[in-house]
Amino acid sequence: MIKKISGGVCAPKGFRAGGVHCGIRKNRVKKDLALILADVRCAAAGVYTTNLVKGAPVLVTKEHLSDGYARAAIVNSGNANTCNADGREIAEGMCALVERHTGVPAGDVIVASTGVIGQKLSLEPVAGGMEALVSSLSADGAGSSAAAEAIMTTDTVKKEVAYSFTAGGKECRVGAIAKGVGMICPNMATMLCFVTTDLAISPEMLKKALSEDVKTSFNMLSVDRDTSTNDTLCVMASGLAGNPEIVSADEDFRAFRRALHKVTAALCRMLARDGEGATKLIECRVRGAKTKKDARLAAKSVVCSDLLKAAMFGQDANWGRVLCALGYSGADLDVSQIDVAFRTKKGYLPVCKGGAGLPFDEDYAKKVLSADEIGIEVGLGDGRQRATAWGCDLTYDYVKINGDYRT
Amino acid sequence: MIKKISGGVCAPKGFRAGGVHCGIRKNRVKKDLALILADVRCAAAGVYTTNLVKGAPVLVTKEHLSDGYARAAIVNSGNANTCNADGREIAEGMCALVERHTGVPAGDVIVASTGVIGQKLSLEPVAGGMEALVSSLSADGAGSSAAAEAIMTTDTVKKEVAYSFTAGGKECRVGAIAKGVGMICPNMATMLCFVTTDLAISPEMLKKALSEDVKTSFNMLSVDRDTSTNDTLCVMASGLAGNPEIVSADEDFRAFRRALHKVTAALCRMLARDGEGATKLIECRVRGAKTKKDARLAAKSVVCSDLLKAAMFGQDANWGRVLCALGYSGADLDVSQIDVAFRTKKGYLPVCKGGAGLPFDEDYAKKVLSADEIGIEVGLGDGRQRATAWGCDLTYDYVKINGDYRT
Repeated sequence: MIKKISGGVCAPKGFRAGGVHCGIRKNRVKKDLALILADVRCAAAGVYTTNLVKGAPVLVTKEHLSDGYARAAIVNSGNANTCNADGREIAEGMCALVERHTGVPAGDVIVASTGVIGQKLSLEPVAGGMEALVSSLSADGAGSSAAAEAIMTTDTVKKEVAYSFTAGGKECRVGAIAKGVGMICPNMATMLCFVTTDLAISPEMLKKALSEDVKTSFNMLSVDRDTSTNDTLCVMASGLAGNPEIVSADEDFRAFRRALHKVTAALCRMLARDGEGATKLIECRVRGAKTKKDARLAAKSVVCSDLLKAAMFGQDANWGRVLCALGYSGADLDVSQIDVAFRTKKGYLPVCKGGAGLPFDEDYAKKVLSADEIGIEVGLGDGRQRATAWGCDLTYDYVKINGDYRT
Repeated sequence: MIKKISGGVCAPKGFRAGGVHCGIRKNRVKKDLALILADVRCAAAGVYTTNLVKGAPVLVTKEHLSDGYARAAIVNSGNANTCNADGREIAEGMCALVERHTGVPAGDVIVASTGVIGQKLSLEPVAGGMEALVSSLSADGAGSSAAAEAIMTTDTVKKEVAYSFTAGGKECRVGAIAKGVGMICPNMATMLCFVTTDLAISPEMLKKALSEDVKTSFNMLSVDRDTSTNDTLCVMASGLAGNPEIVSADEDFRAFRRALHKVTAALCRMLARDGEGATKLIECRVRGAKTKKDARLAAKSVVCSDLLKAAMFGQDANWGRVLCALGYSGADLDVSQIDVAFRTKKGYLPVCKGGAGLPFDEDYAKKVLSADEIGIEVGLGDGRQRATAWGCDLTYDYVKINGDYRT
């Protein structure tokens, strides 16, 4: 039984979280420093950006997680600490500050940064804010919310989610916080996402669960096809749920995989819906593909097309752009077998059958596409594989936000 | 001696061109049907979209050019004749109409269409307009201009260009018309481009010249990363310049290659500058790459980034987005060796040296980026290969134009 619960990263047993404004951002109100602290050493795993330009925190976190364990995560917004000569030193310094204030060895600390690339990050505000940050830690939902708020950049809403599930006869929980919005086309992970669970699981199986999951979650999400330099998705498992430790791909592992995917898919929808300037969530569901890979290529290509995204903003059922994006997706497909329909809360609109257009009423089409969540259903008629991808519309505000982000 | 001349596709000896409004478009003023007619049968070659969804005219043109010869090209705007059940029949019908009105066998006719995907194209307006179209043919610049105008969709200016060069001791000419604007990320060709030359050259060598050229011309151009279903680039060579026929990659072939690239590079700049909603041309020049492929991947990735394009619109020297795009480009590069500078008519602004930021004055940066043509110079410090790519900024008007294109 998988059940949605409250509490975000604090829902699982053994985690506290908090967030404060320490002064990295000039804005005096917005929190800019977050901490997640586990009561015990956790099995931990991470996946990171594939961009060759990697933020210094990504490099440090990779090293710290190489032994499969961690106990804390420190995260700042307002500065990506990327393309800075002293970047590693600063990222290591943030971990050392966590050690000094909590006793968790620096080597067990995950560190992440998000914000502008190529501006020096000073340790000073972080050092000055540590005492308040540690005092802010709480094991209830307020702690998770404060952390979720502190990692936001141009996000308009904070993203947190949690589910409970059963493994080894014990009730377990998995929760997460994330941030997204721009420079979002994760390739192995989203901008920043931190998952906690009280499941007992070996580091190897945790890594396996995470690596399998991203293929159908964050790797199927795009706001603007720009793969960030700082994408980081980390999971920590405290084991405090009391289930027998998962060490193989057994029934309990599959139960965790299902719950984890509930969490990550929910976050993908939240991230897409809150894409920079977005007014609509776009979900493309492909069925009937020859292989899983073909299904994923096809679905992702549709949500990535600027032309399709602009058409959705304009509530224009321009399905030719769906066909066009499918055609250059790299998926193996038979054009003469493609069906396309739009499905929203406002109605269902089939637009293409067997690769050719169907007549439809333009007024009804406008009504269907006026919904704030657009389902694009694609049948490839060529096999049994399915995939879902998430994106958002392309709007004036995306241009506005990104025309002057730094200043 | 390569020299810019006037006359577009009519500059080379042996070509007439024209354009009329036949009624495919509801707009009564805008021309929508073009014809290029050669006095003699021409060696001819084409490259086409790699999109699996191919416009019917693309399929027909491929067949007609399979013997390496052609004598005419008929093109309509306002309807892409793509994803229509009777598309091939209509495309063949357009070629048959050319045969009936000019005597050129339908199998020697190139056909192309551009406009909305998935709307039925009727032969009726084409048939009704043929007489006027043939009467409009002229061998001077006015004919080329009329044809260039008739193939425009959301283009705001017509694109034509011509150069003269010397081969086999004879003065030869190469000219072209093109259209572009949206759904532009050519993969083997741009939306529509027709090149004429009076050079004598075998079909094989003409094909070789074209295939080599697109790698550094149209394949390095992007407005929105959407590879169209109808991309078609065709060249016809009348041989009337009187040079000894080129049958190998000799000095004359290289002279033609240089002149052809002058033509195609000029068109790429025109197409990028007139990208949908664009206010600025962006030219990314990469040097110091390990291989040609790395140089091309790097340059293309920069001009494709929505984030970078929005920053250029906002005159924001956000060079972190250049680094980010280089990092996910797929090019083999050493981040710590990357230099980046912006160069425009308004000034020169180095922003990144050895992968780390340089201090710069924000007011001066705004001034440099206020120019309508932005050069982004990237040094990879890793080899001797170079590449140039063209794109445009991402603006409110791109969103506006594409939010409601059909209606």
